[in-house]
Amino acid sequence: MRNPATRSGGIADHAVRRPHGTADTVPHVDGARLLRRIDRFSRIGGAEDGGVTRMGFSEADREARARLVSEARAAGLETSVDAGGNVFISRSTVRPKSPARPRILIGSHLDTVANGGRLDGAYGVLAGLEVLQCLAESGTVTGCDVVVVAFANEEGALFPQPFWGSMVLAGRLDALPSEPRDHAGRPLREALALAGGDLSDLASAVWAPDSVVGYLELHVEQGPVLERLGLPIGVVDSITGRTQLTVEVTGVAGHAGTSPMEGRRDPLVAAAEAVLSVERLAREDRLCRVATVGWLEVTANSPNTIPGCVRFSVDIRDSDSAGLAAAEQALRATLADLAERREVRIAIEVAVRTDRVRTDPRLRQEIAAAAADLGLACEAMPSGAGHDAQVVADIAPVGMIFVPSVDGVSHVPAERTAPEHLTAGAEVLLRTVLRL
Amino acid sequence: MRNPATRSGGIADHAVRRPHGTADTVPHVDGARLLRRIDRFSRIGGAEDGGVTRMGFSEADREARARLVSEARAAGLETSVDAGGNVFISRSTVRPKSPARPRILIGSHLDTVANGGRLDGAYGVLAGLEVLQCLAESGTVTGCDVVVVAFANEEGALFPQPFWGSMVLAGRLDALPSEPRDHAGRPLREALALAGGDLSDLASAVWAPDSVVGYLELHVEQGPVLERLGLPIGVVDSITGRTQLTVEVTGVAGHAGTSPMEGRRDPLVAAAEAVLSVERLAREDRLCRVATVGWLEVTANSPNTIPGCVRFSVDIRDSDSAGLAAAEQALRATLADLAERREVRIAIEVAVRTDRVRTDPRLRQEIAAAAADLGLACEAMPSGAGHDAQVVADIAPVGMIFVPSVDGVSHVPAERTAPEHLTAGAEVLLRTVLRL
Repeated sequence: MRNPATRSGGIADHAVRRPHGTADTVPHVDGARLLRRIDRFSRIGGAEDGGVTRMGFSEADREARARLVSEARAAGLETSVDAGGNVFISRSTVRPKSPARPRILIGSHLDTVANGGRLDGAYGVLAGLEVLQCLAESGTVTGCDVVVVAFANEEGALFPQPFWGSMVLAGRLDALPSEPRDHAGRPLREALALAGGDLSDLASAVWAPDSVVGYLELHVEQGPVLERLGLPIGVVDSITGRTQLTVEVTGVAGHAGTSPMEGRRDPLVAAAEAVLSVERLAREDRLCRVATVGWLEVTANSPNTIPGCVRFSVDIRDSDSAGLAAAEQALRATLADLAERREVRIAIEVAVRTDRVRTDPRLRQEIAAAAADLGLACEAMPSGAGHDAQVVADIAPVGMIFVPSVDGVSHVPAERTAPEHLTAGAEVLLRTVLRL
Repeated sequence: MRNPATRSGGIADHAVRRPHGTADTVPHVDGARLLRRIDRFSRIGGAEDGGVTRMGFSEADREARARLVSEARAAGLETSVDAGGNVFISRSTVRPKSPARPRILIGSHLDTVANGGRLDGAYGVLAGLEVLQCLAESGTVTGCDVVVVAFANEEGALFPQPFWGSMVLAGRLDALPSEPRDHAGRPLREALALAGGDLSDLASAVWAPDSVVGYLELHVEQGPVLERLGLPIGVVDSITGRTQLTVEVTGVAGHAGTSPMEGRRDPLVAAAEAVLSVERLAREDRLCRVATVGWLEVTANSPNTIPGCVRFSVDIRDSDSAGLAAAEQALRATLADLAERREVRIAIEVAVRTDRVRTDPRLRQEIAAAAADLGLACEAMPSGAGHDAQVVADIAPVGMIFVPSVDGVSHVPAERTAPEHLTAGAEVLLRTVLRL
């Protein structure tokens, strides 16, 4: 997993250093401004415990998107929203189809999971804005147009289609449901329109494969590796493969007091067996690296009523495609057996199916070189989490920069990264853009 | 279980007959009016599939209560609401503390489970109103004051305190949480005030044990017994004992992709084991008759996040108190073991704990005699479901009349009872009141 070749001299000095012996004529990010912005955005959908609930296309998400647009405009930048609801920022108008000059895309997403962290996604978008603002303010002339993107609904917390925005941009329209609905049955069409998108015109938002020379995503690691190594920067070499399923178990509802145990077709006890089977895939059978049921909903969900229906998500991840496929196959066999034994109906939908994605070798080199320019030690490492970069990889070379996560936790209110690491990551992003 | 002594000649003629050879001077209920009223009320909180969602103290519940009051007043009856939110209807003002004359209480509840049936509870209240209206219209002089009650929040679907209203009336205030909240954390205080109650004044709503000569509750059976026997009327001899627990499992939330399986403290896999243990109590170990998890909620409930907390209900029922206690003890031991093994915290709250309640022998006789007067065959039988009657039994003799449930199902949209059985039940209720 380690790649010592990309380690820039092992210097673990987390403060950004200006290169020795060269005139430092390149611009630097305004770290304080970036940190202030991260703090301001964390309050949109923020709770007292530090958690942020800004699920894709929710009211809080719209507020964050509107704030991003207004801050970008206040900085003298151009903004636009495509039919998929992705927000773009640049120094001149963004045309998806026929760019006048080569283009570098940088960014991430603003949406969060329920009660998630303040950095996941938002950090990458706001650092992108900082880089672009810095380039504009310093009047730096770049060889490529730099475009910042806030991809819509990366998490899929409300509308269960993770990577929505990047899938639209990459033209993966065939994988999208025709009339997506959220977990409560509300149509995405309306929520998307409120966010400035248009479900009927998604094709207009597709970028051509040759329309972008590279996509760079700066992100918190969300795991413990960099912290344990004492390194400020990680260069992602691959993003884990993932299969996400939505399972619906339908039984027969009834009165909890008057329905004898014999003859019950209780979907919740069936789902309970399924939840344990999912854990077993990774923990005992070791068919995949991790396997999680994070979302489960019971209908009618009343203490006095045997449920009629239970729906839950299954998330399995591995860097080996064969392992992922084997895990999914094993789970499907277990669920088929369960359906027969418990006399319930089990329907399985594939929400996400992505293989491991390798980042672009040249971009990895440039990131490592940018870190070296700044005197920041770095290490090549895989990403255990999914990112928009893995979808954009369909149409462009992608690179990812990681900064350490305190205690390795993410998707929770306690998600944190040291301020100097946040600034260092943005600085590496800026340097990498300049090198390209 | 069967009591042939109460079977009135085995006549299974479901139409109400007037007694042979006696001048029929007693009033009869207006069956068509009752059925119309049941139909009208089923639309309050009603869905297209016939299901009704009118959870206690919800907006739909308030609408049903307001409709009840306005229909009673239009019939020239007096109405009042006590501090617990119970609605009373009578021919003269109801004073909880010092009734001028002996009093008979009849009724049930208007609230439902989520997507429940149209008859459970509402039938007993509306039949009570029909009986009272019929007595008033016919100018019948009764030895006792007849008071109809719609008990508040019998199901506990939203505010997890089933039998709320009858517990307040019976003075079981010590068993009520001091500041009850619904599953979403909203205080009952406000919802209760909107329904005309007052959480600070519950003591004013307590009835003295000698203030009522009997409580009669007419209800759909919710099980298959009467239908299988081909009988229109059941006389309840006992109501099942029940223990309902709320279990909270707290683990450690994390990112589904970056948290290794080793070291996870996932409360949902622990809860899945618990759900299977609950089923085992009744199905394999036969410690109790039925055991159900009907309600389960996951936090944060997002496909990409290992949950931090899971809460669920446990409902166990048996007519034998020792069996109930043994089942609860076995479950507690299993959960303690689970908490240790899975390194999660498990907290258990008792929401309901009721022993089997026997109905009053004299009331049983009068119900059977009333059915016989009408030429309706009946049978003594236990109730597998809980009812407000079991709480009122603390302070007064109680009797319960059952009518058949089509296919024995309840708490679901398909809950039905034949119209002639609905009318027959109301007629038996009226006759029983007249006999007292």
